Amino acid sequence: MAHTITIEYTTKKKQQPHVNQLGFGKYFTDHMFIMDYDTEKGWYDPRIVPYQPILMDPASKVFHYGQTVFEGLKAYKTADERILLFRPDKNMKRLNKSNDRLSIPAIDEELALEALKQLILTDQDWIPEAVGTSLYVRPFVIATESCLGVAPSRQYKFMIILSPVGSYYAEGINPVSIHVESEYVRAVAGGVGNAKTAGNYAAGLKAQEGATDLGYAQVLWLDGVHRKYIEEVGSMNVFFRINDTVVTPMINGSILEGITRATVIELLQHWNIPVEERRISIEELVEAQHNGSLKEAFGTGTAAVISPIGSLHYQDEKLVLGDGITGELSKKIYDAVTGIQNGVLPDTYGWTIEI
Amino acid sequence: MAHTITIEYTTKKKQQPHVNQLGFGKYFTDHMFIMDYDTEKGWYDPRIVPYQPILMDPASKVFHYGQTVFEGLKAYKTADERILLFRPDKNMKRLNKSNDRLSIPAIDEELALEALKQLILTDQDWIPEAVGTSLYVRPFVIATESCLGVAPSRQYKFMIILSPVGSYYAEGINPVSIHVESEYVRAVAGGVGNAKTAGNYAAGLKAQEGATDLGYAQVLWLDGVHRKYIEEVGSMNVFFRINDTVVTPMINGSILEGITRATVIELLQHWNIPVEERRISIEELVEAQHNGSLKEAFGTGTAAVISPIGSLHYQDEKLVLGDGITGELSKKIYDAVTGIQNGVLPDTYGWTIEI
Repeated sequence: MAHTITIEYTTKKKQQPHVNQLGFGKYFTDHMFIMDYDTEKGWYDPRIVPYQPILMDPASKVFHYGQTVFEGLKAYKTADERILLFRPDKNMKRLNKSNDRLSIPAIDEELALEALKQLILTDQDWIPEAVGTSLYVRPFVIATESCLGVAPSRQYKFMIILSPVGSYYAEGINPVSIHVESEYVRAVAGGVGNAKTAGNYAAGLKAQEGATDLGYAQVLWLDGVHRKYIEEVGSMNVFFRINDTVVTPMINGSILEGITRATVIELLQHWNIPVEERRISIEELVEAQHNGSLKEAFGTGTAAVISPIGSLHYQDEKLVLGDGITGELSKKIYDAVTGIQNGVLPDTYGWTIEI
Repeated sequence: MAHTITIEYTTKKKQQPHVNQLGFGKYFTDHMFIMDYDTEKGWYDPRIVPYQPILMDPASKVFHYGQTVFEGLKAYKTADERILLFRPDKNMKRLNKSNDRLSIPAIDEELALEALKQLILTDQDWIPEAVGTSLYVRPFVIATESCLGVAPSRQYKFMIILSPVGSYYAEGINPVSIHVESEYVRAVAGGVGNAKTAGNYAAGLKAQEGATDLGYAQVLWLDGVHRKYIEEVGSMNVFFRINDTVVTPMINGSILEGITRATVIELLQHWNIPVEERRISIEELVEAQHNGSLKEAFGTGTAAVISPIGSLHYQDEKLVLGDGITGELSKKIYDAVTGIQNGVLPDTYGWTIEI
């Protein structure tokens, strides 16, 4: 590797929060990784330093034009004290795919992965060990040039921060009720919906607030062109079991190519359960629920892994899925994926790497 | 007013750049305005302080989820040393409209306008006086809560920064060639295209890079649903003169409600020139150019005011507009708007306010 990652250790370790306080993304570890970029030098000075605020010029492009991308993955500590990462190479590939879409210079994937590993090792005593907990890893890039011209930045920072996170399902995995969103749209083909970039999340906040006010946990996004094909649920990919076939929206330019999504598809294929990536209309789901063939539905993402859907609320219809409890297949997938992630089950697919 | 704006003057004034070096948004004045928000206190501590970098936690929501909005307007110094603002109340209204779409708490428009005036007065010796120059004013809001949960921030900063800007047309107002974008989409109804928020600009960078590589100045955006209706040009609204009628895309949820756009429409109405806000397809423009009725086209925005379009490149067609020089009406509108803005012409419409 061309670069050496320097480490400056903190002289004042923080008090770690109790495992019950963790929640999601609220606490950060003692160190962080930074690497700078400018058009003359390229990416330079990769370093691990004490976690600290950064100085930003108020004219930094990220504040005004949203030139930024991110990734999310988790590190797990196994019962025998090994540290596992789940398919981190896929995150680094997707980071560069997002970079390309946002006109941000590519990052050496090997270096980024090495940085991530070294940072986790540096703060390994922060990885929580209770069932369902993990260390959430957030690599991200921000445009730092101080200039208000609308054009790609000539300076960036690539950073990695770590947050110990609690069990997503403190009281067990339970289905949630979902509002099918008819007013707002998350993304459209030709836009940035398939990149992991800030603007997609900003666009979803208002609809999420509306759904929360109505008593729903999340929104189900429909496509922006026809306003009828299923896209994502909240910030997760989504799957439906119709009779004994599992269907999920195909990659179409406006949904994120989730790594958990890919994992679920591969698992189903290994299990010889038919799985289809295709367009799915909301009418098809209504019809399937009416004729009894819609058995289960669930979201997939890094944070929750599997998030079962109990009911879908579309205009005046309330579609209750299955018997309102977590479906059999949803539970089986959840157990298989989390089992491999935290080292309880053998990883026969070669998905985990040990640090 | 409930709040008093405090002022901390700089002890070290910067050297001001020469008027020929100005460009756009590259230099910033000696002071800036900041006001903070948190869910308990609401907006608090409005203050003018020396221009300086701000400390940001790496987990600040603006970096990850793009919760941010901005505005842009200009202050002019007239020949008789008065300082003029152009319709700033409209910017403040739009700021709150954008805030609402992005789930950001509303800002007292009167206070924001007062802050803007006091800041400009504080740095009034930075307002350039040469023809075509002005002081660009950038109010913006960023989400500053350090938390990775996807939900509206509980803390924000509202800031105003000032940048002396050069003449947009150093060598006179000249038409540019435009690439009609067929691959990428800027925004879609139901999304955030009608809010002045970072994500819209991030989404446009890649297409702009492509157009630049092909030798064009800007892209003409088509709608994301039908891929045929005109939306905006670059980051400006767009107008076409077809015979003696002026047409511009109607407000449809995916384009920005430009203040220059509104001003041009009002001017045309005052002049009794027919103006229509409606859907305009790219085919209609091709047809109008073929039959000789497409006379002029221009973009409108705060930075350039009027940006004449010399030619449109759509698939294999090259549509040259008029005789390739700046159209008569484009020039007339440019002179009228800039004349009122910089105080050379009497403001019979009540558009300017003097500080």
